[in-house]
Amino acid sequence: MERPRSKRPVSTRPAEREIRAGLIGFGTIGTGVVKLLQRRRAAIDAMLGARLRLVRIADLDTKRDRGVRLPKGMLVPDARRVYEADDVDVVIELMGGYEPARRFVLGAIGRGKSIVTANKALLAVHGREIFGAAARQRVDIGFEASVGGGIPIVRVLRDGVVADRTVAVRGIVNGTCNYILSKMSAEGAQFEDVLLEAQTRGLAEADPSFDIDGIDSAHKLVILTALAFGVELHLEDVHTEGIRHVAQMDVGYARELGYEIKLLAIGSMCGDDVAVRVHPTLVPAAHVLAGVRGAFNAIYVEGEALGSSMYYGLGAGMMPTATAVVADLIEIARNRLQDTSARVPPLGIPALRRPKRVPMGDLRTAYYLRIMVRDRPGVLGNIASILGRHGISIATVIQKERSAGGTVPVVIRTHEARERDLQRALDRIGRLVGTQSPPVCLRIADDLGGA
Amino acid sequence: MERPRSKRPVSTRPAEREIRAGLIGFGTIGTGVVKLLQRRRAAIDAMLGARLRLVRIADLDTKRDRGVRLPKGMLVPDARRVYEADDVDVVIELMGGYEPARRFVLGAIGRGKSIVTANKALLAVHGREIFGAAARQRVDIGFEASVGGGIPIVRVLRDGVVADRTVAVRGIVNGTCNYILSKMSAEGAQFEDVLLEAQTRGLAEADPSFDIDGIDSAHKLVILTALAFGVELHLEDVHTEGIRHVAQMDVGYARELGYEIKLLAIGSMCGDDVAVRVHPTLVPAAHVLAGVRGAFNAIYVEGEALGSSMYYGLGAGMMPTATAVVADLIEIARNRLQDTSARVPPLGIPALRRPKRVPMGDLRTAYYLRIMVRDRPGVLGNIASILGRHGISIATVIQKERSAGGTVPVVIRTHEARERDLQRALDRIGRLVGTQSPPVCLRIADDLGGA
Repeated sequence: MERPRSKRPVSTRPAEREIRAGLIGFGTIGTGVVKLLQRRRAAIDAMLGARLRLVRIADLDTKRDRGVRLPKGMLVPDARRVYEADDVDVVIELMGGYEPARRFVLGAIGRGKSIVTANKALLAVHGREIFGAAARQRVDIGFEASVGGGIPIVRVLRDGVVADRTVAVRGIVNGTCNYILSKMSAEGAQFEDVLLEAQTRGLAEADPSFDIDGIDSAHKLVILTALAFGVELHLEDVHTEGIRHVAQMDVGYARELGYEIKLLAIGSMCGDDVAVRVHPTLVPAAHVLAGVRGAFNAIYVEGEALGSSMYYGLGAGMMPTATAVVADLIEIARNRLQDTSARVPPLGIPALRRPKRVPMGDLRTAYYLRIMVRDRPGVLGNIASILGRHGISIATVIQKERSAGGTVPVVIRTHEARERDLQRALDRIGRLVGTQSPPVCLRIADDLGGA
Repeated sequence: MERPRSKRPVSTRPAEREIRAGLIGFGTIGTGVVKLLQRRRAAIDAMLGARLRLVRIADLDTKRDRGVRLPKGMLVPDARRVYEADDVDVVIELMGGYEPARRFVLGAIGRGKSIVTANKALLAVHGREIFGAAARQRVDIGFEASVGGGIPIVRVLRDGVVADRTVAVRGIVNGTCNYILSKMSAEGAQFEDVLLEAQTRGLAEADPSFDIDGIDSAHKLVILTALAFGVELHLEDVHTEGIRHVAQMDVGYARELGYEIKLLAIGSMCGDDVAVRVHPTLVPAAHVLAGVRGAFNAIYVEGEALGSSMYYGLGAGMMPTATAVVADLIEIARNRLQDTSARVPPLGIPALRRPKRVPMGDLRTAYYLRIMVRDRPGVLGNIASILGRHGISIATVIQKERSAGGTVPVVIRTHEARERDLQRALDRIGRLVGTQSPPVCLRIADDLGGA
């Protein structure tokens, strides 16, 4: 390339240039963004050589005291006054949900505005439409805050490990679930009690199903796999199990076997095909992922050349998430100032590929099984022979408790087996032991790599 | 800002555009870069919409078989044929050391070429000159590979956590030291034996002092603090201790007290002042940093708004480090293709500030002390009263062994104390117990935050 070195004109009065942002949705994260922009104003302006200013905010609730001072008239109830405004360069969408967030975002893009959003549900479901519109209009979409809160995992996958072929991502991406599971492990508490406490402390929603049934993790997995593998997956492609069925007993037995239970969102490449699943997983206690406790998140990435790497931090909360939103704002401001919006496609590559999914039944992994049985001679033998007939070999058995009701747990750790075979065997075992408490089946991650 | 939406011309024949790289230094990492560029050629070209090609390589050794196929004539002994070549857009410097690497890099910059380097020593010592030259010429300097190998920590600090005020970085940034300390902890082995084994396995250099005396970590800390705090520090600003004096006995007592010993490179803000130090540190065994084992590296970052985050991965090795080099190449290629070189200053901000250093004596931390004493009545009392007179209060004492020679270890964990007071007390204690084995003093990181 025999092009002369760059001689772009540089503004002679950079301090007078201004990038203007408008915010839609003035809740917890929105408040954090306003605080952070106020607190870091001088540093950000120095970094950019220009002013980055929030000029409009829309929220239906214009009255509530959020503990931040705003210029009079900045906060309005009508979102159109943000996304249609001529003096707004970037729209920050923090209202969440599918509609009307989708309509507002598309409206802003149509007017040539760049977008910053923390809305994983929106991107997981309407990402194709939104990224497509942004590409046509050559505007930026920043969505660092949509996965892993303050962890810069979007940049890591889009810019950091981009030279490598990433073959697996495993994420602890829901702080509520990780808080509950960590607490169950540390304190021997029951699921229901910890959930209630988390709700009281504001760490879990009044209706917690979005989190604890794994749906939030599945949304995030759709975004992670798009970035990591360049593939377009849909929410319904993801095999999704939550943590409701994880009993204190299972947490305890897992520890005894040398594992911690974590809700993992797992995407893995199998040739050109992709397997995607969210489920509680036994992680070896000495592994670095098992040390991710409380409300912390972590994304564990495996690359062909890079090997294992992990990105750890607070996955939620006002200020951590605000740092991700403002980092996107800064990047978009740099692009606007240098007239290079859309210099990198939002997902790092020009177009996603729709991959073949590996059927869940083809999965090969080790399993943890807990089967409640009447304490009668021969039961363990029957279970073992059903497993054997399905090609599943047993690594460890724990059977030691006696209960007043005559029902005792048999805990089995298997060697690697095929999901389809295991589910068939569990059906048979379920019929054998009765259905009042069906067998618990958790998958074991013995193949994590790392040190 | 009432500027119309970006309407930059986009090349109509992007596939015919080409970015050409030249490589100086064809050792282990260089070989990895060639392999990775060959293996990922199609994916990278698709990502860029252009060709990224390595066109020249210089190394004094043009004969050795490195296991990669190169076009005839590509490998030459003379570095000038790379950094002076008209057809090279980007120079990859992987020769290491100060000179002639500095001269080659400045030569390339002077000719308008961007730079990718893994040379932490060069940047730590000549960074001001090199970054200044790059700014004047408006070219990019990629140095992701200089710290943390394949961990994208440069991007994380420059682009990821940029909205926040980072107040501390703590890095396990030397794989050799972490391998030795992990092995001493896991296997109860002596320092000298593990070092020898690491040398045999190629994990430590024949002359290991650069690594085990902490100098390599100090170089990396200078780069990390520039990125994290925007400050210019010099190597001689860093208080540097290595791991030679860490005995198996200390690793064992640390474990007994609930800690793992890690060589940490620590930078922390204290108002506007900065404290920088490299030393073996006791890390609580349950903390996520203690789970960083073997040749893995991790950088633990603390931000005012973000709280704790950590970035973990392989800090060295042919292919992991090559992923960082090629990620830089891709970013630089994007900038060249869109004529936006130097769109972000290499350190994220226009200019570094020379900060005041916090004197080491002002440090406040908890300490681990091991003092070898003649097993005589009253010795422990004397030590305790010296500590007390210097305002140092004791948290735990371990004294249990009896040795044939009549010398036994007294192990003391202190509460937080001031370094200056502690060193004065140790002087006194050293005179008391004699100098044939001076007291061992390690710092304890009880203030790490996280979960």
